[in-house]
Amino acid sequence: MDEISVAEFRTDVFDKEYITLNGTREGIVVGGRHLLDRLPRAFEGVDQIGVIGWGPQASAQSQNLRDSLAGSDVRVVVGLRAGSASAGAARAAGFTEQDGTLGEMFEVIAGSDMVLLLISDAAQAALHEQIFAALRTGATLGLSHGFLLGYLDQQGARFPEGIDVIAVCPKGMGASVRALYLQGAETNGAGINASFAVEQDVTGRATDRALGWSVGLGAPYTFRTTLRSEYLSDLTGERAILLGGVHGIVESLYRRFREQGMGETDAYRHSVDCVTGPISRTVSRDGLIGLYQRLDDAGREIFARAYAAAYPVGLELTHEIYDEVRSGNEIRSVILAGERLARFPMGRIDRASMWRAGEVARRDRDDEQLPLDPFTAGVFCGVMMGQIDTFIEYGHPYSEIANESVIEATDSLNPYMHARGVAFMVDNCSTTARLGSRKWAPRFDYLLTQTAYPSADDTNTQWDTTLVKAFEQHPIHEVLRECARLRPSVDIFVA
Amino acid sequence: MDEISVAEFRTDVFDKEYITLNGTREGIVVGGRHLLDRLPRAFEGVDQIGVIGWGPQASAQSQNLRDSLAGSDVRVVVGLRAGSASAGAARAAGFTEQDGTLGEMFEVIAGSDMVLLLISDAAQAALHEQIFAALRTGATLGLSHGFLLGYLDQQGARFPEGIDVIAVCPKGMGASVRALYLQGAETNGAGINASFAVEQDVTGRATDRALGWSVGLGAPYTFRTTLRSEYLSDLTGERAILLGGVHGIVESLYRRFREQGMGETDAYRHSVDCVTGPISRTVSRDGLIGLYQRLDDAGREIFARAYAAAYPVGLELTHEIYDEVRSGNEIRSVILAGERLARFPMGRIDRASMWRAGEVARRDRDDEQLPLDPFTAGVFCGVMMGQIDTFIEYGHPYSEIANESVIEATDSLNPYMHARGVAFMVDNCSTTARLGSRKWAPRFDYLLTQTAYPSADDTNTQWDTTLVKAFEQHPIHEVLRECARLRPSVDIFVA
Repeated sequence: MDEISVAEFRTDVFDKEYITLNGTREGIVVGGRHLLDRLPRAFEGVDQIGVIGWGPQASAQSQNLRDSLAGSDVRVVVGLRAGSASAGAARAAGFTEQDGTLGEMFEVIAGSDMVLLLISDAAQAALHEQIFAALRTGATLGLSHGFLLGYLDQQGARFPEGIDVIAVCPKGMGASVRALYLQGAETNGAGINASFAVEQDVTGRATDRALGWSVGLGAPYTFRTTLRSEYLSDLTGERAILLGGVHGIVESLYRRFREQGMGETDAYRHSVDCVTGPISRTVSRDGLIGLYQRLDDAGREIFARAYAAAYPVGLELTHEIYDEVRSGNEIRSVILAGERLARFPMGRIDRASMWRAGEVARRDRDDEQLPLDPFTAGVFCGVMMGQIDTFIEYGHPYSEIANESVIEATDSLNPYMHARGVAFMVDNCSTTARLGSRKWAPRFDYLLTQTAYPSADDTNTQWDTTLVKAFEQHPIHEVLRECARLRPSVDIFVA
Repeated sequence: MDEISVAEFRTDVFDKEYITLNGTREGIVVGGRHLLDRLPRAFEGVDQIGVIGWGPQASAQSQNLRDSLAGSDVRVVVGLRAGSASAGAARAAGFTEQDGTLGEMFEVIAGSDMVLLLISDAAQAALHEQIFAALRTGATLGLSHGFLLGYLDQQGARFPEGIDVIAVCPKGMGASVRALYLQGAETNGAGINASFAVEQDVTGRATDRALGWSVGLGAPYTFRTTLRSEYLSDLTGERAILLGGVHGIVESLYRRFREQGMGETDAYRHSVDCVTGPISRTVSRDGLIGLYQRLDDAGREIFARAYAAAYPVGLELTHEIYDEVRSGNEIRSVILAGERLARFPMGRIDRASMWRAGEVARRDRDDEQLPLDPFTAGVFCGVMMGQIDTFIEYGHPYSEIANESVIEATDSLNPYMHARGVAFMVDNCSTTARLGSRKWAPRFDYLLTQTAYPSADDTNTQWDTTLVKAFEQHPIHEVLRECARLRPSVDIFVA
């Protein structure tokens, strides 16, 4: 088993609080608009923050930071490849060459005291040597997840000495980081939680710069992790319940309901709509145990049977994915796939029959009337708990477990799938996530179909009731309650 | 692109012939019962052949070799782990401690001049140092595929100096190697083709020992490869069209036919039965082009549309698998999965609805009445040709391409799936193959469902007719004709 060891931290600018999650104290920083006037102190010594790239994270983060720093002396500048097709979009969002807030990426890197490197993982792997060479001595390099560390580890390479290396990793897709930040203007504290890591600290200011960055993005609360813990849980989570897992779950459930005789729209309501609507909303507000408690006795019986059948699949596949990630296989796969993309572009995933049915079904949907199908709830919770228990086994901090397994799903990804379908959700994530989701969704589908559903339907065999008992008593429920306390409950807004 | 370079070879015992495949001359050895009296010369200096293991290959090969060497002075001895659960089966097949033909594996290794290491890949990886240490100097180590070389490469390790390292790799599952050998008593030359490789030759006899081994197994013809070429094509082929691909194809087609309104049995006939019955029989006898020519004009039109939609999926996924194999990812995955097996045993794959329907459908099947569905034929051939073109691109010898993409499917694997269902076929292959098949079948299924079938059904768009034209003129057809000439046409017998 790998040792995940997350250190204490000290901040001179923000107020550190402690939360106790399953008996473990974690230091966190609670965010909010009222803290924005502390950002200049957090960014002391930083005149310019360069945000490199214009993918979903880069566009959201550059705008949030600019808005949070409005009126201060810290300038947010976007850096793009020369001739980038994204220049128009950046200009439309208010970053322009005229006022010096849009420029060529290597010039922006060289001109910035803090560089947030939010280009694709493949580009980070390909360009990291040039980027490292362009950074000023004493600059702070910021990442939004740990992929580059995993890649460097494999290559036997390292970050350059003489710079800070930090990470702030929002636990949600870029679109949510922006949308919930805008909602935060009305409801102070609405936003996407983030983890932060300090990998190198030569300035002595790395922690406060990271926390300033996170507060500036609008994170309701920010918890400590390490780059390694982050990429292990992040790459695993998006391949499992967050993207790949949920996609495989709903495909297999839709097919199951169709085989049981439901019409297309009904089957869609009981699978996709149920997961992305009532299940996600309930879990966001009341946790996993709240979902269970909403069911009547007959519903709980069905939930328990489905849960007992699906949990082993979630546990097995999350372990497999975790092994593939920590062995470096998954990172190598992403790099290899990137090299094939010009010849074999990623295909569409929403031309298959369920998603065509979903397009129709979403049109005349009444959210209040959506069914809370107990079988679907049991399968979804079973796979999710398989991921949670895998992360616990590997020693990840509870904040990371809760955010990377539950809150990112209910507060960011699933609402997008609810509004726009799976393709929109999956394909607005990073290329690394898109590839991972395409790779693992079918595995979840097959294992559920081959082993979980036949077990659940086998009425001759008593199912394993210890699993649902373990679920009822699981420490994750208290952890989710504590996390829920740290962010206001808002109806997630999808633009 | 990797260079696959296969050298010439020289035999003093057998008759080398040349075949010309797409303009390239390949040296081969044609087998047959009339050559068995040459085996003592081929095995000169070998008193004892130790066959280590009792998996499907080990049990088939030890029996074939013993029967082929009956009356000679060369003894075939089976070596098993102390306390192996397979000892009873080995005894039942006539290998006993009493007559010295069954023993503890390390003792058998130390006592043999030639050691055929047919234990699982995971066991080879775990035990190779002990095995290397137990081998006599000047012994010949025989493998039946190149996995161990791939594993050693990754570890930066090598085979010990001072021994021969050869491989004979039957292009079929163990059960077929035995069953067709028995049929060969009636029809001289019936059997499973094999490739051979000489990785190290310190005795100067390595080539003839390899050819003797192959002829003794009953290979209709034996062609030259390298260990590296073998494991690249073998691991890729079983993950693609041979096991994973064909499983994903029939699952996706069955679902498609069900969605189009067919009953369970009919859908099974048009998907699984059609592939494993009429398609495989026709291709075995008349090649891929023979299958196409059996269709009428309307059938060819449907075939062409399905082919054009499925070929890109076959090409893309076989490229991805090939990348994963040559990067070492797939070998690492197999090792990691092996370490998880005690906690997460491989689940059954035949409890899903199609295979339950298949059990019923196989019971009252009339083989003469099975449909040759042109859509199914187009999809199957499209994916198969994607694999063939991938192997051609990487420079594999045509014999290897034809056997690893077509003949192994039609002459070994598909007949077993026809008689016993997919689980029997998949789960009688090596653990490496079983894991690979479980990993990749769902990927074929999803890509066909998400991209190929919607494209084939999109009647507004003209499909790419150049693909089926390229198929009609493909050099593989002449290659398959030449290969067919080298083995008698028998109705494949499944015990």
